[in-house]
Amino acid sequence: MPDAVALPETADEVAKILALAQEYRFPVIPRGAGTATTGASLASKGGLILSLLRLNHILEINEEDLVAVVEPGVFTGDFKREVEARGLFYPPDPASYEFSTIGGNVACGAGGPKGLKYGTTKDYVLGLEVVLPGGDRLFVGRRTMKGVVGYDLVHLLTGSEGTLAVITKLILKLIPKPPFEGTVAAWFSGPKEVAEAFLKVLQEGLFPATAELLDETTLSAVKNFLPEKIPEKAKALLLLEFDGAKKQVEEDISIAEKKLKEICLKVEIAYRKEDREKLWLARRSISPALKQIANGKIADDVVLPRSKVPFFLEFAKQKGKEKGLFVACFGHLGDGNIHVNIIFDKKDLSQLEKAQKLREEILSEVLRLSGTISGEHGIGLTKKGYLPKELSPAGLSIMKKIKKIFDPYGILNPGKVF
Amino acid sequence: MPDAVALPETADEVAKILALAQEYRFPVIPRGAGTATTGASLASKGGLILSLLRLNHILEINEEDLVAVVEPGVFTGDFKREVEARGLFYPPDPASYEFSTIGGNVACGAGGPKGLKYGTTKDYVLGLEVVLPGGDRLFVGRRTMKGVVGYDLVHLLTGSEGTLAVITKLILKLIPKPPFEGTVAAWFSGPKEVAEAFLKVLQEGLFPATAELLDETTLSAVKNFLPEKIPEKAKALLLLEFDGAKKQVEEDISIAEKKLKEICLKVEIAYRKEDREKLWLARRSISPALKQIANGKIADDVVLPRSKVPFFLEFAKQKGKEKGLFVACFGHLGDGNIHVNIIFDKKDLSQLEKAQKLREEILSEVLRLSGTISGEHGIGLTKKGYLPKELSPAGLSIMKKIKKIFDPYGILNPGKVF
Repeated sequence: MPDAVALPETADEVAKILALAQEYRFPVIPRGAGTATTGASLASKGGLILSLLRLNHILEINEEDLVAVVEPGVFTGDFKREVEARGLFYPPDPASYEFSTIGGNVACGAGGPKGLKYGTTKDYVLGLEVVLPGGDRLFVGRRTMKGVVGYDLVHLLTGSEGTLAVITKLILKLIPKPPFEGTVAAWFSGPKEVAEAFLKVLQEGLFPATAELLDETTLSAVKNFLPEKIPEKAKALLLLEFDGAKKQVEEDISIAEKKLKEICLKVEIAYRKEDREKLWLARRSISPALKQIANGKIADDVVLPRSKVPFFLEFAKQKGKEKGLFVACFGHLGDGNIHVNIIFDKKDLSQLEKAQKLREEILSEVLRLSGTISGEHGIGLTKKGYLPKELSPAGLSIMKKIKKIFDPYGILNPGKVF
Repeated sequence: MPDAVALPETADEVAKILALAQEYRFPVIPRGAGTATTGASLASKGGLILSLLRLNHILEINEEDLVAVVEPGVFTGDFKREVEARGLFYPPDPASYEFSTIGGNVACGAGGPKGLKYGTTKDYVLGLEVVLPGGDRLFVGRRTMKGVVGYDLVHLLTGSEGTLAVITKLILKLIPKPPFEGTVAAWFSGPKEVAEAFLKVLQEGLFPATAELLDETTLSAVKNFLPEKIPEKAKALLLLEFDGAKKQVEEDISIAEKKLKEICLKVEIAYRKEDREKLWLARRSISPALKQIANGKIADDVVLPRSKVPFFLEFAKQKGKEKGLFVACFGHLGDGNIHVNIIFDKKDLSQLEKAQKLREEILSEVLRLSGTISGEHGIGLTKKGYLPKELSPAGLSIMKKIKKIFDPYGILNPGKVF
């Protein structure tokens, strides 16, 4: 529990709070909707929760400049809809987008399924207005599409998890909205076959917006949520989405279908929204399905070089089996970002211990395979211990010195990341 | 002239040089092919030129991971061709790409015409191996498509113009190669009409890879280089390129043609390479054409919010007229990045003075219109004086402190940027 909560309505109020915090040396934890899975927005050392939920205005959507100006407390889903109503597109789509905020997405460098084709949140931030510890205000970046004036402080702040400054205004890049979408669901005998087929699709010059993979364990968890039986022998599901002009999407999908069929067991295609939703049902049911299995979950969002994904999935499955734990892997095959969920019974201490041991083995393997321990969730509290395993002492030392430049007294989100 | 030039062949040799430089406190100026227009790679304070041209190996192009690993001295054009031979694509295309290096492109955050759809160099850097002043080696970033572990040092180093570290290896992101391209050339009565027509194209959901604009003054300079007469009343040229699947490109271009014809004087379309080259001739002739007019040139690469481009072009033209100077504006309308060239007689001191005054007026107007003074060239020596006009004292102070973290004794590219 925090010692107090502040709900400022303006950047000026945020500045006054940060001036007080520096004067009296109390911790300030910036917070959007609090959906971070890593504890990044928790008051783990007490102090003041600084909610940005009242700075919640979309200030401008400029159709000619392809730019939007928003406050941090705007919900990402609301923003996406406003943008799309004008024929434009803000691609970042973290799973939480209906109940997470733009400010939180930027603070944590949020990802999402569309990362392969469209990149992630950090690719859409042009400029930021922030308040520094002590209350000074700072604008970094620009309103233009390009710019190379001075060091890139925009990307430095994006993904810094509220440890460097408090975002009070964002200038975001928009693109034209692709007019048409289509979905392909392909069932495979295993993840190796999925990777092989997906490579064939890429080699045709096709560039799907989304490529989601569900492994065998995940499919066994969601099977009761699906209206139809999973095809016999199916041990992996690949969901592809294509977007663009109608003719192009249809052509892309017909090429993809041909390539997938060379390897997969069954393929389904949908263009109408309700039919596409049906194909996505397996993916959307993962979260409730995993909750039915047990009450404990350790969730990581590792990223691997794409070629290493099949080997890694096999590794996670085997290691889970050895320890008698349920390990469900699914996620964004397109960019190699795999969600690893270790499921266990919280009340059974021996299971918790095994799960923690398994997690360590899995994250070590990720690093051995030239992967990274977090693709879109960040570090927060839950991955702090693993940071020195991925980053070199020299890199960590530079980051800590940068933290000191912005926050010399360590009042901003203390105990997070490092 | 530098005091000496070093041509190391390995990162180890680079490390030894930077250790010596720190011990004996001599300036080191990292240099690729030396194409920077800003003086970023000149030994303006003497010292050692550290050429990276012998670290020139493409170490890996991984078709499955969509990743390449290269040394900094590889020429960008060579790299692009190697990648394309494998059906993949490295989009960044600074005008210099045949004679500039990947290391230099990354150090300066180079742009290019394809920025609208594909972003710039900085969007394709996943990881960097660098040597710090003093000789310590550091790896930042990753080999994976995504990653949010710690602060983003990759983007901090990208565009830092060799003032923070020396790049010795780069991990770059690739994408599938679009299989087909088409070019549209549309002649207009003025830049306002171009902007209006281009907006209509975007509003159709079309997303051209390139949108290049040539203003009246530029057209008058290149007209003798073109085989055919410029259409009567034509005072601006828009070049659009579309890429993707063949059917989609053809459909996009037919929609674009319809929309452009509502406003433009004449439109030409080409799909075959040699025909497309013909349409690009006007754009490619700018540099030799401007050299014919006079021997002096001040070239800036400002960026404006796209909606402000027509007003700005009119402003530059008027101000040039008032001073009796030839001001040619052309560039990337897609992302608002306009190359402003003030042409004058070097031997005439009064013209030089007028040109410098005009430059100041133009850059001030850019900032007043919420633009930035450099979209792709960087600051180097020639724009240092304007940095404090764009950046706030607080922002500059943070950047200088970051410089001190990396380079406490100021040996790396001293006198550049700040």
